[in-house]
Amino acid sequence: MDYSPKSKKILGKASIGDRVVVHTDGKKYEGLLMPKYSENPDTVTLKLDSGYTIGLKPDRITVVEKSGRGKPRSSVKRSHDSSKPTITILHTGGTIASKIDYKTGAAYPAISPEELSDAVPELREIANYNAKVVFQMYSGDMEPDHWKILAEKVYDEARNGVDGIIILHGTDTMAYSAAAIAFMVQKLPIPVLFVGSQRSSDRGSADGPMNITCASKFIVKSDFSGVAICMHGTSSDDYCLINPAVNVKKMHTSRRDTFRPIDVKPYAKVWQDGKIEMLRNDYIAKDMKKEPVLRNGIERKVAIIKIRPGITHKELEFYKDYRGIIIEGTGLGNAPVTVLDKYTSHHAKLLDTMKKLSKKGVKMFMVSQCPYGKVNMNVYAYGRMVQDAGIVPLSMTSEAAYTKLIWALGNFPKQVEKIMLENFCGEIIENIKADTFLI
Amino acid sequence: MDYSPKSKKILGKASIGDRVVVHTDGKKYEGLLMPKYSENPDTVTLKLDSGYTIGLKPDRITVVEKSGRGKPRSSVKRSHDSSKPTITILHTGGTIASKIDYKTGAAYPAISPEELSDAVPELREIANYNAKVVFQMYSGDMEPDHWKILAEKVYDEARNGVDGIIILHGTDTMAYSAAAIAFMVQKLPIPVLFVGSQRSSDRGSADGPMNITCASKFIVKSDFSGVAICMHGTSSDDYCLINPAVNVKKMHTSRRDTFRPIDVKPYAKVWQDGKIEMLRNDYIAKDMKKEPVLRNGIERKVAIIKIRPGITHKELEFYKDYRGIIIEGTGLGNAPVTVLDKYTSHHAKLLDTMKKLSKKGVKMFMVSQCPYGKVNMNVYAYGRMVQDAGIVPLSMTSEAAYTKLIWALGNFPKQVEKIMLENFCGEIIENIKADTFLI
Repeated sequence: MDYSPKSKKILGKASIGDRVVVHTDGKKYEGLLMPKYSENPDTVTLKLDSGYTIGLKPDRITVVEKSGRGKPRSSVKRSHDSSKPTITILHTGGTIASKIDYKTGAAYPAISPEELSDAVPELREIANYNAKVVFQMYSGDMEPDHWKILAEKVYDEARNGVDGIIILHGTDTMAYSAAAIAFMVQKLPIPVLFVGSQRSSDRGSADGPMNITCASKFIVKSDFSGVAICMHGTSSDDYCLINPAVNVKKMHTSRRDTFRPIDVKPYAKVWQDGKIEMLRNDYIAKDMKKEPVLRNGIERKVAIIKIRPGITHKELEFYKDYRGIIIEGTGLGNAPVTVLDKYTSHHAKLLDTMKKLSKKGVKMFMVSQCPYGKVNMNVYAYGRMVQDAGIVPLSMTSEAAYTKLIWALGNFPKQVEKIMLENFCGEIIENIKADTFLI
Repeated sequence: MDYSPKSKKILGKASIGDRVVVHTDGKKYEGLLMPKYSENPDTVTLKLDSGYTIGLKPDRITVVEKSGRGKPRSSVKRSHDSSKPTITILHTGGTIASKIDYKTGAAYPAISPEELSDAVPELREIANYNAKVVFQMYSGDMEPDHWKILAEKVYDEARNGVDGIIILHGTDTMAYSAAAIAFMVQKLPIPVLFVGSQRSSDRGSADGPMNITCASKFIVKSDFSGVAICMHGTSSDDYCLINPAVNVKKMHTSRRDTFRPIDVKPYAKVWQDGKIEMLRNDYIAKDMKKEPVLRNGIERKVAIIKIRPGITHKELEFYKDYRGIIIEGTGLGNAPVTVLDKYTSHHAKLLDTMKKLSKKGVKMFMVSQCPYGKVNMNVYAYGRMVQDAGIVPLSMTSEAAYTKLIWALGNFPKQVEKIMLENFCGEIIENIKADTFLI
């Protein structure tokens, strides 16, 4: 974490967290002195009032002046401009709104909505913003109950006549939450975009500012309505992708372009310069007169089980008092139910347990642990056996299937299978275009 | 499944499964009459003795003669050519060796090794083959006990002086089995290639013949040793990829290029014309004098748990008598352990259960449910809490981590953590090159 002796010398009495003015050859930068983040311990890192972080080489620094201690200065006055659209920012937490604890180096979700919009002053050129704090948490801690609360807020805001909603959210479970909101709040008159970041605002590669800016531009310039995710489309800062909430996965632990569309095309590219490139036209157009529908009942006793070599019937049996189970099968949607030798004799019990749970009324659906591709349980003999045991194939991401089952059981407990097989917002993959693999 | 009336008329008395000679304008094709597979019910499908399947338009067919019923003719005499290398084919089953049941349309693993090598006559130009049946099963049914048996066969063959081993295997759990063999049989003097297919041999798009041919050419022409997977590299028939056994995932339920390298580059491309393009040089060169090491102990009480919004401590508690658990966390390796409100109060119990199981000696390791990227549990506060509860971060695919834990507990029960953190064959991802995402 520490700067090199060379850099320490040039920094003089300024310490991490201080507000400083750094003079380099010909230029002057004012901002907060940050801990070193680059590979090179020489590079002096400064967080500017714009929210962007820069690295400066000590050789080029002439003077460092301390100018205070504390927060970046709030440089832009907030005033409502009635010629501009209005966007509500619902703040749930996550890296996009996190601070670094300089003692431990770990990040905490703690920035206020005001601090955040101050950090990206260009937003004020695009729209008026209402910022509301719904939660202050990492998305890895989020529960289905939080989706329920968030859905209510989205519903309320959508009925309040705003032009769009941005939900700031951690990336870990964003694919679950976005799908949940898509099911819970249907017939949305406006766009609702989940926005997160993979790098905290203290880092030079912070993606939050561009993701929020692109989301705002997309809300203001396009005629899209419904729930989508707006995040980096590549590892550079060239464009963001608007991906459908129900067909997306977090594919990489740290890359900024982690959210990829699964078996579909993204709705649009939003280029950094503000150009919107629509890639699909099968969305419902924005219509401020439309009345959204809120159905945010949830069923908490729902599980995901991943099939693996060595799985036992007891693991499935554990969920006998659950109301629904998403099974992540292998390949086209397979599970080990064939008895061939002494090592597979226990497979008969897995099949029996499936039958037993089905009979008991546990709703079970099969998705694949392969991220891409449709499920087809008619190709192989064991797929048919599993279907006969009451498990219904579902060509859907595991994230969408799980949230949909929680929602279906919570709102339509008597028609779960019908609802699960009805395509509400593109969650069921019907025809896969060839060029949607690994994009 | 049925042919159109137009095609039925031209087929006359020939029925599905019959050996027929089809005369078209200027050409004559002999083979088995197959059920219709193309979208067009007119197209007459014929499986030739070469193993390839062709579609013929009825307008161009002049005469169809029945020439018998039954298997394709074994057209090539088998004789040992001492000028050629020798490859052992270990047959475990899977689509690559499956037959279609024409009544139900479902596929069964039933073709004998002899039938299979007859189906791809060009193999005999490359090498001499010994074919041995180890199992006749779909890989979705495979148990860790089968890895143990397969490892023994690989070890025996590798010591027998053959130039390479091809393991025909279903694709569903191939990533698990390939990793298991890589851990169980180390210091291999020769290449051991897992080969499967995504389309059965009855279909025009069958990938099995090209995958086996490319694997054979790679064994004969390259100086590679160790365990890898050889499957289609694209959805066309242009090249196969040789992917490391321990860094691969089945990424698509049905595409032929389903196996993708995760966070690494493939070792090589093998072009259909036989050209080998090496992409890495960090493998151990073939050395027939090397003595392989067999360590095929297994521990059956090992599980994978996938973290999700709504997971409860009871699900982890269920595994208290297991010896090892791979936890698929969200993002960088997170789990819901922070208590923030009444909906997250049960998170304290999850953390307590982690601690309890750790103390009891259950070995727990954290991977990510994101397919790509390293795990890092130092970035966020909850990652640190989970580490403090005894869970060790592991930058490895879930498939490799699970098989490695079964193997580590089965062979080195007193040094599990040390073994899990030692990089045996590239399974631990250290530095990720930028161009390895989604290739």
